[in-house]
Amino acid sequence: MTQTHASKRATPRAADSAPARQRMIQVGTEVLAENGFSETGVDQILQRASAPKGSFYYYFESKQAFGLAVVANYEAIWERRLTRILEDPSMSPLTRIRLYIEEGMYGMEKYNFRRGCLIGNLGQELGGLNEAFRASIERVLEGWTRRMKVCLDEAVAQRELPRKTDTDAIAQFFWTAWEGAVLRCKLTRSVRPLENFSDVLFGIVLRVETPNVQ
Amino acid sequence: MTQTHASKRATPRAADSAPARQRMIQVGTEVLAENGFSETGVDQILQRASAPKGSFYYYFESKQAFGLAVVANYEAIWERRLTRILEDPSMSPLTRIRLYIEEGMYGMEKYNFRRGCLIGNLGQELGGLNEAFRASIERVLEGWTRRMKVCLDEAVAQRELPRKTDTDAIAQFFWTAWEGAVLRCKLTRSVRPLENFSDVLFGIVLRVETPNVQ
Repeated sequence: MTQTHASKRATPRAADSAPARQRMIQVGTEVLAENGFSETGVDQILQRASAPKGSFYYYFESKQAFGLAVVANYEAIWERRLTRILEDPSMSPLTRIRLYIEEGMYGMEKYNFRRGCLIGNLGQELGGLNEAFRASIERVLEGWTRRMKVCLDEAVAQRELPRKTDTDAIAQFFWTAWEGAVLRCKLTRSVRPLENFSDVLFGIVLRVETPNVQ
Repeated sequence: MTQTHASKRATPRAADSAPARQRMIQVGTEVLAENGFSETGVDQILQRASAPKGSFYYYFESKQAFGLAVVANYEAIWERRLTRILEDPSMSPLTRIRLYIEEGMYGMEKYNFRRGCLIGNLGQELGGLNEAFRASIERVLEGWTRRMKVCLDEAVAQRELPRKTDTDAIAQFFWTAWEGAVLRCKLTRSVRPLENFSDVLFGIVLRVETPNVQ
């Protein structure tokens, strides 16, 4: 790569913040979560974003670059959501986690169990096929894991959880099981898998509810 | 639907057991697990199965019918595997579950973290888009859940687990977290997520190992 090329890349283009580009990313965030990457055509994005034919490749180098911009947008949306819920000082740390799961159930119902989690969907579809998507999606999940660990550590500090709780293992496990539960909600067309996730997480893993299990 | 048409459907055609059809299903089981349904072309299946061009629609009514035959084949393979492992009387029930997870790790490594679980992959890709796939994949997961519950109940009967263990909730949770862990193995290109799954399952959920967590 020449220096000229590298510095051209380092400077954000005016086009990067154009409203049409933002609209395409917004539409892409909805459509990719429902239909996946392969099934989604460039024409469909242009049409739903009311953008002129041919403008796609003005704003994005490739369909992959578009997909990665959609992942970055989803990451930013979720950063705000996780900050709002998991760092809310008006609730206890475990109440925040409960609320996060409840909002997840609401979201699944709202979109009629079709949408799920964009990160889980694209991870499943492209994780084994495309290195750029794999790395980008894994980085998002690592960020979510760090945030969940901070919240669990706060629960320990506030004595909602015992001092020896392995918050690292549980934070990792949270997102693993979360993605599995969201997938299963699509398959059962119900929130039952997320309810089961919540019951097992609080009742068995964290043992903060009536221990009617063992 | 006329009666003639219905009875034609009820009679299996000779073509249903043809070696070329079996080869296409076999190839499809491998290719769909790696690349998904949309990305996989009929030509690719024909070529890898060394089947003559044009024979696809002789054996399958549609690409969907082919995909459902692949799901049924995967279900049959897993029925044998689950019977072999989860019903092996030479091991304790919990040892069988450990072995199942270890074989899963081995399988992920063997295919270089590209393949994962066909059921999880197609569930994620098609669960929200296609009712026939959704119902068929959910049925497979329900069957796996029943088998896991039987094994956990045996663990209770053999006093490996306390009498009050909620084997139903844990069996459901097993496959939810399993599918999430297999997805994450593809993203991390490592077996760490399955190791974390195993640690949390045995150490925290079932509490059968050193309770160093709480």
